[in-house]
Amino acid sequence: MFASNKGGPATRRRVNPQASAQSAGQPAADPSAADRSAADAMADANAAAAPRSLERASEQPVERHVERPVEPGRGRTASKRKSKARLRVVQPQIARGDITPRIAEFLDTVEPQTPCLVVDLDLVKETYLALSRALEPAQMFYSVKANPAPEILRLLARLGSSFDAASAGEIDLCLAHGIEPARLSFGNTIKKKADIAYAYEKGVRLFAFDAESDLRKIALAAPGSRVFCRVLVDNEGAEWPLSRKFGCTPKMAVQLMVLAQTLGLDACGISFHIGSQQTDVSQWDKVLGQIAGLWAELKAHGVAPRLINLGGGFPSRYAKDVPSIEDYGAAVIASVKKHFGDPMPELIVEPGRGVVGDAGVIESEVVMISTKDLGEQVRWVYLDVGKFSGLAETIDEAIKYRIRTAHDGKPTGPVVLAGPTCDSVDILYEKTNYRLPLALKEGDKVRVLSCGAYTTTYSTVGFNGFLPLKAYYI
Amino acid sequence: MFASNKGGPATRRRVNPQASAQSAGQPAADPSAADRSAADAMADANAAAAPRSLERASEQPVERHVERPVEPGRGRTASKRKSKARLRVVQPQIARGDITPRIAEFLDTVEPQTPCLVVDLDLVKETYLALSRALEPAQMFYSVKANPAPEILRLLARLGSSFDAASAGEIDLCLAHGIEPARLSFGNTIKKKADIAYAYEKGVRLFAFDAESDLRKIALAAPGSRVFCRVLVDNEGAEWPLSRKFGCTPKMAVQLMVLAQTLGLDACGISFHIGSQQTDVSQWDKVLGQIAGLWAELKAHGVAPRLINLGGGFPSRYAKDVPSIEDYGAAVIASVKKHFGDPMPELIVEPGRGVVGDAGVIESEVVMISTKDLGEQVRWVYLDVGKFSGLAETIDEAIKYRIRTAHDGKPTGPVVLAGPTCDSVDILYEKTNYRLPLALKEGDKVRVLSCGAYTTTYSTVGFNGFLPLKAYYI
Repeated sequence: MFASNKGGPATRRRVNPQASAQSAGQPAADPSAADRSAADAMADANAAAAPRSLERASEQPVERHVERPVEPGRGRTASKRKSKARLRVVQPQIARGDITPRIAEFLDTVEPQTPCLVVDLDLVKETYLALSRALEPAQMFYSVKANPAPEILRLLARLGSSFDAASAGEIDLCLAHGIEPARLSFGNTIKKKADIAYAYEKGVRLFAFDAESDLRKIALAAPGSRVFCRVLVDNEGAEWPLSRKFGCTPKMAVQLMVLAQTLGLDACGISFHIGSQQTDVSQWDKVLGQIAGLWAELKAHGVAPRLINLGGGFPSRYAKDVPSIEDYGAAVIASVKKHFGDPMPELIVEPGRGVVGDAGVIESEVVMISTKDLGEQVRWVYLDVGKFSGLAETIDEAIKYRIRTAHDGKPTGPVVLAGPTCDSVDILYEKTNYRLPLALKEGDKVRVLSCGAYTTTYSTVGFNGFLPLKAYYI
Repeated sequence: MFASNKGGPATRRRVNPQASAQSAGQPAADPSAADRSAADAMADANAAAAPRSLERASEQPVERHVERPVEPGRGRTASKRKSKARLRVVQPQIARGDITPRIAEFLDTVEPQTPCLVVDLDLVKETYLALSRALEPAQMFYSVKANPAPEILRLLARLGSSFDAASAGEIDLCLAHGIEPARLSFGNTIKKKADIAYAYEKGVRLFAFDAESDLRKIALAAPGSRVFCRVLVDNEGAEWPLSRKFGCTPKMAVQLMVLAQTLGLDACGISFHIGSQQTDVSQWDKVLGQIAGLWAELKAHGVAPRLINLGGGFPSRYAKDVPSIEDYGAAVIASVKKHFGDPMPELIVEPGRGVVGDAGVIESEVVMISTKDLGEQVRWVYLDVGKFSGLAETIDEAIKYRIRTAHDGKPTGPVVLAGPTCDSVDILYEKTNYRLPLALKEGDKVRVLSCGAYTTTYSTVGFNGFLPLKAYYI
């Protein structure tokens, strides 16, 4: 039944002309590039760039520093802390979510066909390490769905990450890249019994649930596994709130956790999700207070929970400024301590966007600029990337990407931004007040920032005859 | 630049186990199946079905009647009318948009892995011929983006259709299936100059436009071509309205048509689009009145338009009843006659959904049924198909698909319907009042009707590790 779900369809289409390792030991560009426009960055990179080989084998090291892989698994907190202490994290030399010198150099030198996504693996690594440190002692389970590129999975596996998989397909993808099943969580609450059995057969022993029927399927197909119950919480403050699709009420969670024990499962804990792109740190404290109440309730019912899965929600930098990783992590962990005391429960986090979002840039070409009537002020700017080739999170104009052009700093005017398809829904921003330089013209390139997460996989198979979004991992 | 847009990515992934031709000469099931539930249809088909070979070569004839291909091109109205007179159209023996006996038999016999789309090519043919006859003398330009499956393109090409292509990729796809460039319209108003040049080089001579810059690109890259100007009209009454993304005001259209002549192009006419899934026939009369005014204005400015591209908008049968194809066509053509007299201008129509929508059924499995709290009435029903694997038009619950189960006719209760991904947006219907049988259980199959258009191509490349929607054309 589920056999054809295997093989990671999202990754097959990727081409991976890796940029040369020549500059891997040293950032290619001038640190003062921080906070400047793409126009300047482009000029710098053009001046400095020499053609780079596209042949670097992916086996060659891309990291600037040597570290020992952190061992995953339960009870690893102490060794993890020790390993981390040895890591020398290079702070990004650019403002958060801006174009890294490596990406600028790649785009200017290689001039890949547009539209395309370029992800800086060095920045993924730095961000992962920073987030991991800020959320210590939580165990990182990278949310594969955010970007399942093999380059990212391999990098994070080397750094000691565990992985949150949404399907048998994602489990297979992780296993195919050498990730041990003990490092996998089957985090989707919606599962066919056959997929649970498949995961169990492959060695996965950690499952999310939020319904009685799922719990019974897990008990049958994955006997004795660790299970955590997803509960419904408020998503106030999130730019991509999560509706009621996942989770059950705390009252129901208590009953299900008791049932889990009865069914011979290890009812180890509770999970929740604060809402994707959650920019309001104070929301965590509110929700963790509710979880602490549930915790006490569980104990009163004879369940001894020991795990809190904090989910994701760690933001990328879109239009709105976001707290620093350090401040964010500190607030979350302080809140856990406040509500659960010390020693804290075992903690899991499932960042996806927070790890890869800021590390990717989509380069796109302006296909057409027009107005709808003579003399209109608002220009319609049509890009060769749109809702169906990567920018699906512009649905309802929810995620507001920052955009760079070669004319930044010059006078701007209001625009409606749209994609290239013959589909009226393929408008990126019409209600949101976007402005772009008046000097922008057809054929110009634009760069859409913080596109490392939830772009390639949201891309359609080829709507309107346009190819899925290409991606380069450098 | 655009080379990699070629090759029809949307079609490569398709598998095509064609159903056997054994029953092609005779509908497999009983005409009284009309208006009955899937439960009955399933039982019938099971009783009658013998295993069918999956090996039928696609070259074998699938039509029940012999007809000569209709020659496309300008000035073909008379011969087309004559050809059509020879066609004996078999009226569908089921209620519009219901499951055809062939599809029921295929699903029951082959039991393909879910989710999957099954399209009945006989019904595509019948619908195409009915629509073509109802809209006579308009020339049919099938909107490739609705469903670019090779089986559909080849069938419609044999029936004499021309094709509306949205990109160089779709042009290549049509050419690859033997469709002559004279039968192609490059109907996207958003085009790179390189793509215009490519289309021209391949022989395409008919282009849509709505902006000065596009017109100038066409004049340079496709000199002397026929061009029509897309104008903005109201989309009242459409379930999938088209916003202001395409078209310009009539006032601007006049100026652009004059410019087109000046640039040496054949400024042949005007196009508009009434809104996809337009169920209110009276809208056509209102809009055609506006177009007639523009027509007179153009003549006053020295342009002699002769073509009206009526666009698409012809509905499939979703939750709401829709007018019959015959009534619909009669109303549209009567309105053209009323506003433009006889002889009428040359007419083009671009149906997509109207041709293939009702001919396809998605079969899906119920993955989980749950509630969010103890004792809640509303069940959450999670299917293995969702917004990211084909049902994208449920965005904002715009398109309300009809759903059949094996328990139809039994008592029902309210449901929220959702897809299988770990994405909160992947909810199909929450605000719309859907009800499903209380007897429905996990593992049951459900059939989503009228899914032949805008499903396979909207599917993502593999979000959450789930494969793109599979499709069978029988």
